[in-house]
Amino acid sequence: MNENLHKPKHIAIAGSGLVGALQSIYLKKRGFDVSLYERRPDMRNNRISAGRSINLALSDRGFKGLAGVGIDEEVRQISIPMYRRVMHDKEGKLSFQPYGKDGQAIYSVSRGGLNCKLMDLAEAHGVNIHFNHRCTSVNLEEGSAVFESDHDRVEVKPEFLVGADGAYSEVRNEMEKRPWFNYSQYYIDYAYKELSIPPAADGTHQLEKNALHIWPRKDFMLIALPNLDGSFTCTLFFPKSGPLSFDSLDTLDKAEAFFKEQFADALALMPHFREEYSSNPAAAMVIVKCFPWTWGDKVMLIGDAAHAIVPFYGQGMNCGFEDCSVFDELLVNHEGSWRDLMHKYEKARKANGDAIAELALRNFIEMRDKVADPGFLLQKKIEARFSEKHPDKWIPLYSMVTFSHIPYHEALMNGDRQESIMREVMALPEIEQRWDSEEVEQLILSRL
Amino acid sequence: MNENLHKPKHIAIAGSGLVGALQSIYLKKRGFDVSLYERRPDMRNNRISAGRSINLALSDRGFKGLAGVGIDEEVRQISIPMYRRVMHDKEGKLSFQPYGKDGQAIYSVSRGGLNCKLMDLAEAHGVNIHFNHRCTSVNLEEGSAVFESDHDRVEVKPEFLVGADGAYSEVRNEMEKRPWFNYSQYYIDYAYKELSIPPAADGTHQLEKNALHIWPRKDFMLIALPNLDGSFTCTLFFPKSGPLSFDSLDTLDKAEAFFKEQFADALALMPHFREEYSSNPAAAMVIVKCFPWTWGDKVMLIGDAAHAIVPFYGQGMNCGFEDCSVFDELLVNHEGSWRDLMHKYEKARKANGDAIAELALRNFIEMRDKVADPGFLLQKKIEARFSEKHPDKWIPLYSMVTFSHIPYHEALMNGDRQESIMREVMALPEIEQRWDSEEVEQLILSRL
Repeated sequence: MNENLHKPKHIAIAGSGLVGALQSIYLKKRGFDVSLYERRPDMRNNRISAGRSINLALSDRGFKGLAGVGIDEEVRQISIPMYRRVMHDKEGKLSFQPYGKDGQAIYSVSRGGLNCKLMDLAEAHGVNIHFNHRCTSVNLEEGSAVFESDHDRVEVKPEFLVGADGAYSEVRNEMEKRPWFNYSQYYIDYAYKELSIPPAADGTHQLEKNALHIWPRKDFMLIALPNLDGSFTCTLFFPKSGPLSFDSLDTLDKAEAFFKEQFADALALMPHFREEYSSNPAAAMVIVKCFPWTWGDKVMLIGDAAHAIVPFYGQGMNCGFEDCSVFDELLVNHEGSWRDLMHKYEKARKANGDAIAELALRNFIEMRDKVADPGFLLQKKIEARFSEKHPDKWIPLYSMVTFSHIPYHEALMNGDRQESIMREVMALPEIEQRWDSEEVEQLILSRL
Repeated sequence: MNENLHKPKHIAIAGSGLVGALQSIYLKKRGFDVSLYERRPDMRNNRISAGRSINLALSDRGFKGLAGVGIDEEVRQISIPMYRRVMHDKEGKLSFQPYGKDGQAIYSVSRGGLNCKLMDLAEAHGVNIHFNHRCTSVNLEEGSAVFESDHDRVEVKPEFLVGADGAYSEVRNEMEKRPWFNYSQYYIDYAYKELSIPPAADGTHQLEKNALHIWPRKDFMLIALPNLDGSFTCTLFFPKSGPLSFDSLDTLDKAEAFFKEQFADALALMPHFREEYSSNPAAAMVIVKCFPWTWGDKVMLIGDAAHAIVPFYGQGMNCGFEDCSVFDELLVNHEGSWRDLMHKYEKARKANGDAIAELALRNFIEMRDKVADPGFLLQKKIEARFSEKHPDKWIPLYSMVTFSHIPYHEALMNGDRQESIMREVMALPEIEQRWDSEEVEQLILSRL
């Protein structure tokens, strides 16, 4: 880090969620004075859900972000590796798709547990976390903000403000009022509802533990991720309205009959189905895009505040953690003004935020529809085989996104190129018999 | 109108701009109790600019909207027909492009004058206009709103609320906070600045009066529209930042030198150039898209609040007036609930709002770049000739948008089809010599 860089002394961060807490540790380690303001109470006292999914899938980009503050291995210990997708058809028959090469996995981790760990670490580094303080106004020119609690109103005047306050960011909300700030919020027509499969009587998992389970049904799907206590958190992704939708399943009997028809093996493991179905909300999923991500040399957005995406690639948190590690790298190597650093940061990240938004949308179709198609699974097997023989020439798209640090926007471009080659391969007559032939390998090589 | 339709008795409209005022008259004429709330003071007392362009181009859709309340001819009397584009090159040489057939014109009208006339008419019909009342909160479930003035706070509880409060709509702002409300604001990289050419000493226009003047310079342009008092309002559309931009012209000397180089003939007619250039802002242009446009049976958005577009097709007001006349038609012919009417309205208009947004963006490129190209002008001449001979087979895109009531989204589709045919025509060898040949006519006929 350029010692002469005129940089802010005191930085305030709005939001002590996953990304805000991690960013606070990075900045504190670089010598800044850091305060965190969080609108919710301290979840370490009384476990409250943030109204969002209970577990998440950590992958390589996320671990790199955690490694930068030294807690990647500790978090890995409290995560469950998922080595493959297990698809459940209507009859309960299973099929399988490995995520990567041997030993490669994505890791199911508790959102709340990870957030608590990050806040513990932030405080251990000397970050002050002010809970129950909601951001009510922002001054973009000064980089200051007002935070209000039930009995308190603090006007915080740091020299720099970080908006890590999520998809409904108050900091970004202030930018939206300004000319030349581009913004979009797009809700997909689906909603999600969480359910659960409890542990077996002996505390073990009732489905294969080290896997992500999918019940792909073309226009909708159920998934299940393992938890440490032997349970699974299940999520139904389903149209919000229409002929077959959350709206149409307007009684518990209809909902249960629907599950019996579509997800009988899962329903059999859900003793609390009716309570959970009625009490858990059908929640919305939004894609947020905006630009710029910074305001002068006073404010920056990070994580969901800058780029909220749908959950289907399991990359929302991973992308936010990558924001933190990339920003830290830029900061350390930066020569020039703080304002220039802001431009470098948003330039480095914007295209990647857009790309993972697109990839996440596409992965919904892959998960709910394509993984039930033997042709798709064969294509992935051919790609995996080719990639193993020519690792320098072909990294499957899923691996680029999940097990590499290739910028998302490059992964997207490479993936599109690969897809056009694979269309040609899959159109070969009798590809089912010849999938591992020399001829297929030569065809791919000739197209690269 | 179905007399049994359960419909709101009292309707409040936020915004007494062009669309809000017109909509109030339509609704009043259909028997509703209508109140208008406007955040600005009454512009009829002291002419204030709304910070927006001083004149606008009215065309057929706008006149139809005005005809519905009986003031189209009255407004035509205070408008100036513009029959053609007059292009000025750097040397001051002129070229010409008619807008339509003989007698077809778009009409330059004063935004303020038209707005005053609509407010007069609204009041004459018994609409109450509350000025200096800014909408500060909206209840979408009740269709109610709070309006505040310096010394007043009114909680208005109509049975229905219309958001006609423009591109920065407060009513829409409340919808933005709700799940499944899709929204985007996109600012083009350009800004605009207004300047003026005063009347000659004898009160006449110093440029051809019945024309829209364009100084097309590829990446930017100056335009001029005539006013009744003999003056022209000129608008520079220019990049906001970059090597040649409002930011780069950071002294008056630089700005004047730039005008001397690019727009010498116009500058020679601008005695107040330096004052105007320094005092008039470089204003932003935003494209707003959202959906839905209604909330239950309690709230609707109309005009710029639902679909703000860039000004290059001169269709912003026209599209808003068309919203009013289309809504009125739907209302009169509606059988069913008020909620169904809302769905009909947004379904009828959304695709058209999106289409004119796209067309308006494309027209910027046409105006600033293509109209300076003899090939483009020739293409338009061929289209006009063909259209005259086969009016049932071909209406040029500009005419569909400007001189017809074909839905914008159909105009956009037809225009794209026409363009692909014209590419083939323009690629014919020696088209400059053969443009009015039988062969060209037959080629087009064969492609339709």
